[in-house]
Amino acid sequence: MSILVVGSVALDSVETPYGKVDDAVGGSATYFSASASYFSPVNLVAVVGNDYPMHEIEFLKSRNVDFAGLQVEQGETFRWAGRYNYDLNQRDTIYTHLNVFQNFKPVIPDKYKDAQFVFLGNIAPELQLSVLEQVHKPKMVALDTMNFWIEGSQKALRKVLEKVDVFIINDAEARQLAHQTNLVKAAKSIFEMGPKIIVIKKGEYGAAIVTKDSHFVVPAYPLEEVFDPTGAGDTFAGGFVGYLAKTNELNEANLKRAVVYGSAMASFCVQDFSINALKQLTSEVIHERVLAFKSLSHFDEN
Amino acid sequence: MSILVVGSVALDSVETPYGKVDDAVGGSATYFSASASYFSPVNLVAVVGNDYPMHEIEFLKSRNVDFAGLQVEQGETFRWAGRYNYDLNQRDTIYTHLNVFQNFKPVIPDKYKDAQFVFLGNIAPELQLSVLEQVHKPKMVALDTMNFWIEGSQKALRKVLEKVDVFIINDAEARQLAHQTNLVKAAKSIFEMGPKIIVIKKGEYGAAIVTKDSHFVVPAYPLEEVFDPTGAGDTFAGGFVGYLAKTNELNEANLKRAVVYGSAMASFCVQDFSINALKQLTSEVIHERVLAFKSLSHFDEN
Repeated sequence: MSILVVGSVALDSVETPYGKVDDAVGGSATYFSASASYFSPVNLVAVVGNDYPMHEIEFLKSRNVDFAGLQVEQGETFRWAGRYNYDLNQRDTIYTHLNVFQNFKPVIPDKYKDAQFVFLGNIAPELQLSVLEQVHKPKMVALDTMNFWIEGSQKALRKVLEKVDVFIINDAEARQLAHQTNLVKAAKSIFEMGPKIIVIKKGEYGAAIVTKDSHFVVPAYPLEEVFDPTGAGDTFAGGFVGYLAKTNELNEANLKRAVVYGSAMASFCVQDFSINALKQLTSEVIHERVLAFKSLSHFDEN
Repeated sequence: MSILVVGSVALDSVETPYGKVDDAVGGSATYFSASASYFSPVNLVAVVGNDYPMHEIEFLKSRNVDFAGLQVEQGETFRWAGRYNYDLNQRDTIYTHLNVFQNFKPVIPDKYKDAQFVFLGNIAPELQLSVLEQVHKPKMVALDTMNFWIEGSQKALRKVLEKVDVFIINDAEARQLAHQTNLVKAAKSIFEMGPKIIVIKKGEYGAAIVTKDSHFVVPAYPLEEVFDPTGAGDTFAGGFVGYLAKTNELNEANLKRAVVYGSAMASFCVQDFSINALKQLTSEVIHERVLAFKSLSHFDEN
């Protein structure tokens, strides 16, 4: 099944202890698409300025990413610059220039409106809501957000949450939204807000998927070098939603595997700047990484 | 096989958001023994004052904990008081009164000297070293330590590390000792110090076991109420070493299972104050928890 993703397409300038890049392709919809496209066709809705280097994402077309929903506006593309400190767990934003993104109104092309799998990338909840008003009857809506919206637009965020099936969030944000430090309790209180499935990203500690009656945890893949963590969360979401769209069946076994595929894709992403590490993977390489996750976490009880 | 444990036996006064206890039995050797005794006989070497409420640990005798190595000195028992804040991840020490522990010189009774499994609880590295000088030829020596010794007695600590097989440490301490924020690199650099096996405790995120060619991660058991985290690390070590001593074979499958058993025991420990939750477990209840860890972390790759 194809996936509709609405999010940001940006140009990122990033500095890590390993190096730096300027105006590299980034943004939630970009990372998501690059990752999900290994599993399912992707229809992307976003906005860029007329300065955007379209050739940089041209290769995604060959992996069935459709750009008919990408609006190109007069002006500059959304730009973000950040710097990671030595342990890569903290990052400082140097600037955020919304540029053409400031007036972004997602317009879902007619041919995308029957999307069965929808991913609402981390943008204003009001925009996420407007996407849901345009699509028909999706089988699964997954949503990402961030502390900025939890703090500043919680009313709108709570309104979207009522309509989503899967909420993908990091542990600090889950605690913040639920006013609960215990993550099991936080998940319970988020269930009351609408989502039936919560995926909690824990950075270097991995990810968990929680439903009302199940809990499953995937550790992060142990890497000696994390080159650049930018986009890891959206890449995770791409693997997660991409795998589910491919199977087209939301059972428990598929949901577990989807978290593993998401974690595998994220483990590739962080090994290079921008989407570079997501350009030339193969299904064999991805499957090998999934097997590595198995030996990382399975044991024989006797 | 029986286990020799050398560590502290203390009286703890603890305050958590759930309640408080005064002068409750605690200490690394106490938690370790209460946990390990579900798997293997334990010989305990420690010191207490003549104020120690021996009846509180009497029940351990029926589980084959031998107290012939417990020195009872004139004076007061080692006392520690601490307070946990709301999220239980941070604790403030209110006081540490070493009392009789100040002059503790571990004396290993002759009948313990052939111990095949030795656990050196978190005490001064010089004392840990003196234990190793007294025992004959153990099959496995496991060691715990803390930031206090890494900072203040690193030379002695490095000397003990050369002689141990398994180093049990938390993630912050591993980073501190190795001067490395990346845990995979930190483990590599700790291997150079001696241990062949490193067990990294990550608190609410679980535990990992790392050897030169394997990496295995167990998530923490998702609990809605963590009543009191005191002793969780020593209880983990008790389950880990206890299980290995029971199998008496240090292969990869057993090491993995040992981390799961350690995690299971720790998940019980934190559900009550002191060693209360470790008093009346059964092998069925423990095995059920191990199965819960399986469903928490296993997936079918297809």
